[in-house]
Amino acid sequence: MTPHTPAQSESLLYWDDFREGEVRVFGSVVVKQEDIVRFAAEFDPQFFHLDEAAARQTMFGGLIASGWHTAAMTMRMMCDGYLRRSTSLGSPGVEQLKWLLPVRPGDTLQVRLTVLEARPLQSKPGVGLVKSRHEVLNQHGQVVMEMQAYGMFGMRPASA
Amino acid sequence: MTPHTPAQSESLLYWDDFREGEVRVFGSVVVKQEDIVRFAAEFDPQFFHLDEAAARQTMFGGLIASGWHTAAMTMRMMCDGYLRRSTSLGSPGVEQLKWLLPVRPGDTLQVRLTVLEARPLQSKPGVGLVKSRHEVLNQHGQVVMEMQAYGMFGMRPASA
Repeated sequence: MTPHTPAQSESLLYWDDFREGEVRVFGSVVVKQEDIVRFAAEFDPQFFHLDEAAARQTMFGGLIASGWHTAAMTMRMMCDGYLRRSTSLGSPGVEQLKWLLPVRPGDTLQVRLTVLEARPLQSKPGVGLVKSRHEVLNQHGQVVMEMQAYGMFGMRPASA
Repeated sequence: MTPHTPAQSESLLYWDDFREGEVRVFGSVVVKQEDIVRFAAEFDPQFFHLDEAAARQTMFGGLIASGWHTAAMTMRMMCDGYLRRSTSLGSPGVEQLKWLLPVRPGDTLQVRLTVLEARPLQSKPGVGLVKSRHEVLNQHGQVVMEMQAYGMFGMRPASA
């Protein structure tokens, strides 16, 4: 993988390209039961993420994905949707990560991103901060997860 | 895995057992380069999580773990540290998830939990909410990640 080299048909996204109020919808991931269980076995071995029969007895009514698995799948959609063709320099953090509805085997997820704020980063010349709302939608259009995340992006050089 | 059945030597943690101001330190996970790359390849394929040589050219100065990988490793320490021997009913979300310092291959992480608030959940009788600060420390005692997380826990029944 070559850093910051987008596919020929796409242009590289700089900090300058994020506009406040802009909305992007992207991604499509089908949540498989085996992936829910595999993630949970490694990172979140609570029984309602591992055991369908036991989960049915809980208030969740069946197996649900770890919230961290949903967050990780969201990150993958963000990478494929725009980060990998951007000057992304990572993230200092996230505000208000909310798991609003269960994510279940067979669900299909996508991301709706709204740019909330874009400002230069005082401490790092040539780098800007983008604050975005990320809503994760299931196939019924329900918001299953929501977060406000910060991302750092390189600014467009004068030559670009 | 049987739900809510702690090892014989340990007692089951109910909502009632979380006291405001209480501090628990637990966990020990060694971050392996192969695990950083494996997680990133699946969920966060940005080059500074995948390619040591390319990462060395960035402001990070070398390969760093995906922040979501650090969060997932933290969740595993939380599960092993107390959640799996508790009446945990999942989490509605997290506030202020901050990635403060890079997590690198060879780092050893642990968690320092401080209970900030414990209150009954109005909408679910018999269930209480616990708000905790989770600081993730590396082997130098530096806080690499911090979050305030909410957890739902079943209350101790009158018979217990």
